[in-house]
Formats: sequence, structure tokens, C-alpha cells
Amino acid sequence: MLVVMQSHATDEQVRAVCERIEELGYKAHPIPGSVRSAIGITGNTGIVDLGTLESMAGVAECIPVSKPYKLVSREIKPENSVIHVPTPLGDVTFGGQAVAIVAGPCAVESEKQAFAVAEAVKTSGARLFRGGAYKPRTSPYSFQGLGEPGLKILAAVRDRFGLGIVTEAIDNESLDLVERYADVIQIGARNMQNFSLLKRAGRAKKPVLLKRGMSATLDEFLMAAEYIMAEGNYHVILCERGVRTFSDHTRNTLDLSMIPAVQRRSHLPIVVDPSHGTGRRNKVLPLSRAAVAVGADGILVEVHNDPERALSDGMQSIVPEEFAQLMAEVRQIAGVLNRSLN
Amino acid sequence: MLVVMQSHATDEQVRAVCERIEELGYKAHPIPGSVRSAIGITGNTGIVDLGTLESMAGVAECIPVSKPYKLVSREIKPENSVIHVPTPLGDVTFGGQAVAIVAGPCAVESEKQAFAVAEAVKTSGARLFRGGAYKPRTSPYSFQGLGEPGLKILAAVRDRFGLGIVTEAIDNESLDLVERYADVIQIGARNMQNFSLLKRAGRAKKPVLLKRGMSATLDEFLMAAEYIMAEGNYHVILCERGVRTFSDHTRNTLDLSMIPAVQRRSHLPIVVDPSHGTGRRNKVLPLSRAAVAVGADGILVEVHNDPERALSDGMQSIVPEEFAQLMAEVRQIAGVLNRSLN
Amino acid sequence: MLVVMQSHATDEQVRAVCERIEELGYKAHPIPGSVRSAIGITGNTGIVDLGTLESMAGVAECIPVSKPYKLVSREIKPENSVIHVPTPLGDVTFGGQAVAIVAGPCAVESEKQAFAVAEAVKTSGARLFRGGAYKPRTSPYSFQGLGEPGLKILAAVRDRFGLGIVTEAIDNESLDLVERYADVIQIGARNMQNFSLLKRAGRAKKPVLLKRGMSATLDEFLMAAEYIMAEGNYHVILCERGVRTFSDHTRNTLDLSMIPAVQRRSHLPIVVDPSHGTGRRNKVLPLSRAAVAVGADGILVEVHNDPERALSDGMQSIVPEEFAQLMAEVRQIAGVLNRSLN
Amino acid sequence: MLVVMQSHATDEQVRAVCERIEELGYKAHPIPGSVRSAIGITGNTGIVDLGTLESMAGVAECIPVSKPYKLVSREIKPENSVIHVPTPLGDVTFGGQAVAIVAGPCAVESEKQAFAVAEAVKTSGARLFRGGAYKPRTSPYSFQGLGEPGLKILAAVRDRFGLGIVTEAIDNESLDLVERYADVIQIGARNMQNFSLLKRAGRAKKPVLLKRGMSATLDEFLMAAEYIMAEGNYHVILCERGVRTFSDHTRNTLDLSMIPAVQRRSHLPIVVDPSHGTGRRNKVLPLSRAAVAVGADGILVEVHNDPERALSDGMQSIVPEEFAQLMAEVRQIAGVLNRSLN
Repeated sequence: MLVVMQSHATDEQVRAVCERIEELGYKAHPIPGSVRSAIGITGNTGIVDLGTLESMAGVAECIPVSKPYKLVSREIKPENSVIHVPTPLGDVTFGGQAVAIVAGPCAVESEKQAFAVAEAVKTSGARLFRGGAYKPRTSPYSFQGLGEPGLKILAAVRDRFGLGIVTEAIDNESLDLVERYADVIQIGARNMQNFSLLKRAGRAKKPVLLKRGMSATLDEFLMAAEYIMAEGNYHVILCERGVRTFSDHTRNTLDLSMIPAVQRRSHLPIVVDPSHGTGRRNKVLPLSRAAVAVGADGILVEVHNDPERALSDGMQSIVPEEFAQLMAEVRQIAGVLNRSLN
Repeated sequence: MLVVMQSHATDEQVRAVCERIEELGYKAHPIPGSVRSAIGITGNTGIVDLGTLESMAGVAECIPVSKPYKLVSREIKPENSVIHVPTPLGDVTFGGQAVAIVAGPCAVESEKQAFAVAEAVKTSGARLFRGGAYKPRTSPYSFQGLGEPGLKILAAVRDRFGLGIVTEAIDNESLDLVERYADVIQIGARNMQNFSLLKRAGRAKKPVLLKRGMSATLDEFLMAAEYIMAEGNYHVILCERGVRTFSDHTRNTLDLSMIPAVQRRSHLPIVVDPSHGTGRRNKVLPLSRAAVAVGADGILVEVHNDPERALSDGMQSIVPEEFAQLMAEVRQIAGVLNRSLN
Repeated sequence: MLVVMQSHATDEQVRAVCERIEELGYKAHPIPGSVRSAIGITGNTGIVDLGTLESMAGVAECIPVSKPYKLVSREIKPENSVIHVPTPLGDVTFGGQAVAIVAGPCAVESEKQAFAVAEAVKTSGARLFRGGAYKPRTSPYSFQGLGEPGLKILAAVRDRFGLGIVTEAIDNESLDLVERYADVIQIGARNMQNFSLLKRAGRAKKPVLLKRGMSATLDEFLMAAEYIMAEGNYHVILCERGVRTFSDHTRNTLDLSMIPAVQRRSHLPIVVDPSHGTGRRNKVLPLSRAAVAVGADGILVEVHNDPERALSDGMQSIVPEEFAQLMAEVRQIAGVLNRSLN
Repeated sequence: MLVVMQSHATDEQVRAVCERIEELGYKAHPIPGSVRSAIGITGNTGIVDLGTLESMAGVAECIPVSKPYKLVSREIKPENSVIHVPTPLGDVTFGGQAVAIVAGPCAVESEKQAFAVAEAVKTSGARLFRGGAYKPRTSPYSFQGLGEPGLKILAAVRDRFGLGIVTEAIDNESLDLVERYADVIQIGARNMQNFSLLKRAGRAKKPVLLKRGMSATLDEFLMAAEYIMAEGNYHVILCERGVRTFSDHTRNTLDLSMIPAVQRRSHLPIVVDPSHGTGRRNKVLPLSRAAVAVGADGILVEVHNDPERALSDGMQSIVPEEFAQLMAEVRQIAGVLNRSLN
């Protein structure tokens, strides 16, 4: 914390602020300046809110300084974390040399649909399958997912095609089931600050894919991962999926600068979801190329065999032929960065 | 849903889109224009995502039309809903002639603190007491609330001072307890789209105060209330608490236009939280006046007897003397709108 | 500027950064901490961009500290500036005890229309008339204003009704004319960072009403006023008119917290435009009440005698009867703050 | 325009709205629905604001439909526009097979600096040189550019190195000079809706590079280009440079989805500025790769030989060695899209 004094603050005012800081149990470091003084504070444990110093006489403003996260920080662990997801066909990794591809429908609708999509994405080279059995929907009257029967279909996809399974949990009950049936537990954007769910995910034995909240800052995103790690689960994969802005030509604004920003601050892998990130089928291919080019550790893509009849998000799902083209193009882009596809 | 055709779309293309619409089980209403044609669609139940029509030849774009909410809508119930909250000193109402004042500390820290604040806000005329026993915090290392012992302190506040209790539930477990101890169940901004929690609140027997999510649109806000009402709990109080924008002089940007906007679309009461809405102590008083002036049905104000030592949100809490002034001023503003304070 | 070092930064790295700072002509103030060190910098004149220190070994980040504005700052001039606008019926003031009301159509369309609106707003008590002769429009094919003939109509309004005139200049040419015909020169939101125009306005002999840009921060807004004052024109009135956010129930999101924020930092008066701020007729009345309640020094309201036939912004213009009611209500709200209407 | 009626609207109300529409000179197309009716409107010329229909009895809302731009639209001109910029070493093209690279310092500071950077970027393969002689700065006390002497230095760069020159004009006076000295006239983000300047640029004889405003939507961006084209200058190059959002880890949020969005609606070329788009040196390289991967027709990169002493934007400028690496990488990415570098 740094306290900036007003330009006309008196020496007594500076002294009074320093005394208050020490009284609260911290150490004050006055920094006299030609125009104004500032006071650095160290030893803050975060319990007392020092922002209230702002109301003292002569104080212009208080500026928080040190970053509050620990376990997610690259300062603690300089080398990249590589998360292994075991599948019948071998491990898929996030954060290593290879770029991971996760593909599948927005929602699991039926075994027939899931198998059709799984076969298509496997043919194009995907090793992880995504599909929601629990769907957080804006309207209570929209399709909410098949629930446990959907998870059983996903397990059948793994048995039949050898693909690892990534699927979302929306509360403690569904997380219990997802942990049992799936290989990666997804926490959706709307639940990025559902701290009870994050703590529960932190006690799970499977990797967690954590999506950025719709209006989450970098710090909040990393702190949400910190919640999971603080409970003992260090296998966290971050996911940029677009944020909410005034911009109206896409459903969300995909913020690809988040990838180098996370990589600078944290050792955790980060992937991109260009389907939710744009909400438009015709933008999934170009933004997938961009995601791999910017350095993402993987992409999540919605693929549907019959998007026009999809029970959710048909507007942003691509068809198997488009996915095949996507795979061919991102493979070449990955090559430019000396990476392969998982 | 309205399908807008490109200006050079052929008659066959228009016909093909109409046939596809009918094939999907809807009714198509072509609207020929001098420059381009459009096609209205009726009978849509929301199951199939018609946005995929956008990829058909000749289609320029698809525009969704009808509002998806029902029970919250003023079209269904034209007169205002008045929510009654029973307290030892009589009912407090939201949505009627009177403006409701809810005051108290951000977090319950101790009986001593709670009693001190309760006495002060009661003296100034408040009839409802707020205070968190469960605190959703960005950092896992920050104070997370006292839990059930905090709820017991709140119950003691009601017994001792006769104030009704408003407090937040953050998951199903805490909601069970909050429902038992409190008079109004608060759902916080971060949980506005925690649909499992909304459904549980919809089965509660007490009124629910639902805060707007940090980046929620009007429609999403009303749909969250619809989730609660769809489960049978019609006693929902909405709360504007500021949204996230680029603007950096306040913690959030308080969106007071939400109040007339909600009142136009919905029969539910809506209150304002100027403490979280601004995050700055010196802005709570002017924004409280503005909230009552714009027509809000109540305000939620954070008051602390010793903000500099508060365990959370000290920066935005006002002291009892400031609250007394606030009450005097908003009472007069309410009078201009022919309203009294509860 | 404050340089925050990484937690594992070595003493040599800290020393290297300090040496670099001194080498660049500043003074370095190292602040050792238990977890990490920081370095305060004083003497910065703003010429060299110190942000580049961020790329030195061991540096975590650079945080700018001192505020860059001078003439607009309350630190320089603690008491409120009161701007006088002379009119045939006496001075109207901004920033004093009285709240100023500026009313009139979005655009001047004809003498008949201007006179009809002027008569109506004068009857309700307004003393300043607004109306655009130069209209910045999103489309080149939309009505762009009458130009100088429009200014002549405005001058006729002053002659006939005794109202002072507020109207917008969009470039140096129109500013020359506006300065000649009007009493207050308006700079619109789209031109808030048109620095050439701001400099020209700074050389004008009439007060300037400066609207906040659509995505301007508090600092940028004040710096735009600083541009005008730096050229010698100290008669600047600020105007909050809503900012661009994701929120879609209004055209812009009116940010009323800007009023106490400006009043804390600057001595300049600030008014509110609830017509552009909401873009909806039915929200002008409640937001006008809120603007006066929050402490604004005035409001700008669009009034049209026949909004359905208005050549621009009909959707947000209120009719004379609504304006009469607005005046009655804001007069009472002003009274609660011990203010009168100008 | 589409008028959506309330669900309980009567037949008379629908009829009244239709009559009003016809009375205003348009054609009404009623669309009866099972739940509610809607009314399509054709023949609208944009003169009268039909939004006012929203206040008629029984009307729920009005939704604008047809896009207002013409000359920029791909409906008018289906094939890509290719803009040729003649340089001493031959034409550089925007919008064709090749990707154009524009590189140079933020501001021209001296001949020595400009020549040093020009030599470096030419060596790495750039054919166009950027550098500001007129700098729009937030503070009136910041370096505002060298003015005409800066333009003369740029002309000397062309003479000496054969590079084409791209530089910004900030008002009519500077545009006259920029048109004389430079090869491409840049209009900056803050001036995207400075309509007087756009009209002047529309009468210029050189290509215009138009940057997206800090909070401009796709439609507003295209309409700004329409202003230029409507005056007769069809040589417009669009530039995405990041928008303002809540996200605070970068100076702006680079919105790469704008590239496919523009390409779908317009025939104009679009380039990306990853330097302003991120404001951080360490993000320029990854976002440059992403920009080319998403399909941009070029990139604008800030390069400085001594960023720590740069008079502006040093924090986001890369050094010549980093630029050489950037060129090598984007060349390979371009190859994946079957494109070369200009």
C-alpha cells in the first residue's frame, strides 16, 4: 500500500498518518518529494482495510501495491506447470510443448448425437471431448442439460472412442458426479466467483478447467484459481472465453492479451474458447488460429453435427468439415511456434 | 425472431428460408420491403436455436424479439408487488408507498460490534439490519465471515433491538441456515447466475433480496428473478449495486437508470446499494439521495462504528453520525415523491 | 511513480533500478519491505516515460502516482469556481448556490419550432436555452444542423425571450460563429479529446460547457478541461452525459458518481445531461431528480414541442408539459439541499 | 424498423400504430403472432426518428433493422478493395494477397532517431514507415509532436530509405500538411467521430488509415469510413487498435474479432495496431502473430531504438531486434494463410 499525500499537506499531517499506520501494526516508510510526499506501508497482512487512511487530513489517495496471490504465481514457481490428463489413448498435456484440442457439442443431447460428433472430432485428431450434461442457462425455461444420463453418455464416448472427457459442474452435487465420470472438471464463467464450488473443486482429485468470468480482471481470475489451489488441487487449467464489453458485433469480446498476461504472472496453462468468445460460427476458425498464434496452450471448440437443430448454442457451433479445416490450420500455426497438437 | 434478408436476396432464397422455418415447426411471416425483405417468425418456444438461419443463403442477420421472462413481467401483473417483511416492530414493506432503509456493517465481526451499529442505526430510524455472516471474498486468505455464530449474533440483534435481519447466503448449506435465522435472504452479485442457488432460494419461505450481477443486463437480471419465482417464491426484491465498467473513480458504476427501467418492465420492487455501488465513503450520502430521488423502493447502506478497523469494506462504510444525516436527507427527498421512510 | 520489485529481486537489481532512475535525472527512494522492495521516484516532469523500467531485471511493475492536472485542481484553488453567464434577464450562475436549468430542442429546426419550445421552457422557469445548429451525427446522411441560419434563430430566441443561449461548436469554423452568436460554447462528447478544438475554445471569450467523452475517465475529463484553461479561458463548466458500457437498457449509462468525484478533485462546476445520459424519454424525469439530488450544479434537458417529428433525438426529448412537472420536482429536490433554481 | 407490440395490445392499438406509420410516410407491415403482434416498417429514409412510436399505447419496443451504411458495404461491392500506396520501391497494397507492415516510432523526435529506426525496420523488411509529427496527448503539458519539421524529417526518411510514410493529422491545418508530405493520412482513435476532419480527409487525394475509436461499435466504425467515402475518397484502410473495457492488464482490449466482422460486412481492408492495442512491449509480439493469424491485412508496430528515452509511448515500443523476430514470425504465420508480406 502506498499513501499519496496532497501537495499542501503539512509535516504534522504526514507524521499523523505514519503514526496511525504504526498504531495499526504496520511499518511506515515516508518518501518526501519536491511537490508532495508519499508513504509506503509494509507488513500488511490484508486483515485491516488500510483504504480508510484516505479519509485522514492531508491524504490525497491510497494505492494498493502487492499482488495478493501466492500459489498461482510465477514468482513462487518459475517454470510452467504441465497438467496431465490421462485418456485411454495416452496422456493429453496442458502447458507443455503440445497444444491441446478439446472439441464437442455445447450440450450432450443423446448418445446418437454425442457419438456422431465424437467420431468426427476424433477423425480430425482431437483427443479430448467436451459436452455439457449440466447447462447454466439464462432462462429457467431453456434446456438445462440431461444431468447424470448425460454423464453416462460421455463415459460411453470415452469407452467407445478413447477420448478424454471435459464437462461442467454447476454445484456441489453435480461436481460429485462429474468427478466420478469425467477426466477434467469444468467450472463455467458464471461460477468463477462461486467460492463454495471453487473450494469443492479444490478437494477434487481431477484437473479443473476454470473459465474466466464475464467481467473478471486478471487478478480476480488468478485469485479464483488460488481458491482451488489453496485447497490442495494444483491441477488447474485457465480458460479465456471472452468478456462483456459495449462491443456488439460478437456475443463477447475475446481478450487474447490475457494469454501473455497470465503467462507472465502465473505458471498455470491457459487455453482459449473461441466459440463462446465470439458466439458466431463464422468467427470460430479465424479466432482459433489467432489463439494458437498468441501462444495459448489449447483451444475448446464447439462442434455439432446438425447445428440448426442444436438444443443450445447452435449459432456458435461449427460442423465437422469446418473442424477438420480448423485442425489443419491450427496445426500449421502451432508449427510456427515450434509446437505440435496433442 | 426476425430474419433480415440481404438487399440482393432472391425470391427463391426468401422462400427457402420460409420453408426451413416452417419445417422447424414455426410460422413464417415474410415482409417485403423496397430495399430488402424480412421474415417474422412466431410460435417459437425457445427449444431450437433459430440463429442458425443466419448461415442460409441470402440472410443478412437474425434479430431476437420477444422477451423471455414471464412471472416477473408487468404484462402479467400490472400492479406493483409489495413485499412484506415481518419484524418485531411490525411489517417493513418493499414496493409500497414507503421507502425501506436497510443498514448495518458489511460483515458481522462480534456481538459488541453488531450491537453498537444496530443501536446507532435504530436510533436514526432504520428498521432492517444488514450484516454478512458469509462473505464472498476475492481472496481465499481474506476474512470469510463468522458463519453460523454470525447468524446467531444477527438473531440476537433482532431480539434485542426489534430490527428485521437481511443477510447473504452463498450456497445451499448457508441458505438453509440463513432461512432459519434471518428475515430476508440476500443473494449476492457474484451469485446472480448461480442457478442452483436461485432454485433453492425459490423454494425458501422467506423473501429474497437479489443483487444485480457485476455485468448483468436488464434481461439477465429479470431472468434471475424469474428462476426464483418459477420455483414458487414470489417475494423477490431486486437490488442495483453498480456494474463493472472502464470508469475508475469508483469501485463500480452505479446505474440508477436501472430503477425506472425495471419499474417499466416488472412489478417487483427494486432497491439501491450505494455502498457497493461506489465503494467510497464520501459518495454514499450523495448517491443515497439520488437513489431515493430516482424512485428506488429502498436503500442498503453499510454503517460501521469503527470503519478503520473493519474486517471488510471499511473504505465504503459510513459512521453512525453520517448515517443520521443520510436518514434526515433521504426522508426529505422521499417526501418530494410523496413517500415516507419505512 | 512507484516501482514494485519482484519478491525474489536481489539487492543488486534494486540498486541497478535506482541507478537507472538517477541516471534519467530523477530521485530514487528505495522502500525495503518484508516480502519485497519498492522504489519511489520523485522529480518526474513527465517528459521521459518511466514505464520502461518495467522491463528491467527484478521489476514486477510500475505504478503511476501523481495526478497530472494543475489548473483544474482543487489543490490549487480550494473554493468553488462560480461561472457567470450574462443574459438579458440577468446573470445565470454555475457552481454557486443556485442550480442552473438549460432546456431546449436537440436541434434547431426552424424559427417556429425554436420559438415554440423557448416560450414553453421560459414559462416553466428556464433561463438558458439549448439547441444545436451543428449536429455531429453518426451517419453522413443524417440531418447535420442548419449551421449559421440556426445560430441566427438562436440569437432571435435571446432577443425575443431573454434566454441565454448554449450551443455546440464542432470545429474551429463553427466555434468562431458560435462565439459570436451564443452565450455558452458547448464542446460535445465526441470532441472531448479534439485537442485543437479545446485549444481554440481556450482562446474564446465566452464560457465553455465541456461534455464528458463516451469512454473518458475522470482524469481524462479533467485533463480536457485543463487544455482549455491552459490557454487562458478559466470559465469551464463540466457535463456528465453518460458513458458507454455493456448495459443495453439505456443508450448510455449515466454515471452520477462523477459529480461528487469531480467536486472532490476540482473547483469547476459540473452539470448533468439526463437526455443523452439515458436516451429514453421516460427516464429523463427520474434521472433529473437524481442529478439534482446528487449535487449537480445544473441540468441540460432536451424539450421538443413535437418529438415524433423531431429531426434528431426525438426518442429522448420530453414535451413541455413533462418539462413543467420536471421543474416543479427538481425545485423541491434542490430545496432539500438548500439550493434554489437559477 | 420493427415495432413489437405488448402481448395484451388490442387490435385498435395495432391499427393506430400502423396508421401513424403510414401518416409519417412509411409503409406498415403488421405481423400477427400467437403471443403478440409486431409491425415491420419499410421505406424509412432516416429523417424522422421512428423511435417515438415506442410511446404509443400498446407498444412494447422498437427495434432498428437495416444497416445505415452504403459505400463501405460489401453488399454494394462484393469483392475486396485493394488500396495501393506508391513508394519509391514500388506499390505497397492493403487488402490484396500480401500483408502490409507499417513500423516506426510513436513520435518523430529527431532526424537521427527517425533515420536509426527507419534503417532498422527497412533491414527487417518493412516498406512503410510510421511516426507522429502531431501527437494528440491527454495532457497539454506532454510533448505534442514536432509539427511540420517532423513531417520534413519523414519526407527525408522516404528520400533516404525509399519507405512510404504513414502519419497522423489531427485537424484541418495539419491534414493540409500531412497530405503534402506523407503517403497515407492517419486519422487517430480520438478523432474517429471528428466529422469535420473526416469530411476533409474525404476530399484528400491520398489514402486514409482510419483508427477505430476507443468505444466505437462496428456500425459506428463503418459509418466513420462512410463519411470519408461519401466525399469521394474511396481509399480507406481501417485499423483495429483496441477498445476501452474494464480489463486492466492492458491499456486497451484488442478486439481481434473485429477483423472477420469487418470483412463480412465491408470490402475495405483492415489492419491491426498491437502496440496501442495492448500498451505493453511484452505483448506486441504475440498479438502481432495473432493479428496476422486472424486474417488482418496488415499491422502497425511501434519500434524505437531507445524506448527508455522515448518522448511518448516508450512502454509499448519494441526494439529493432524484437522487430526482426516479429517479422520472421509473422511471415511464417502469413504463409499458413497463403499470404506473403508486402
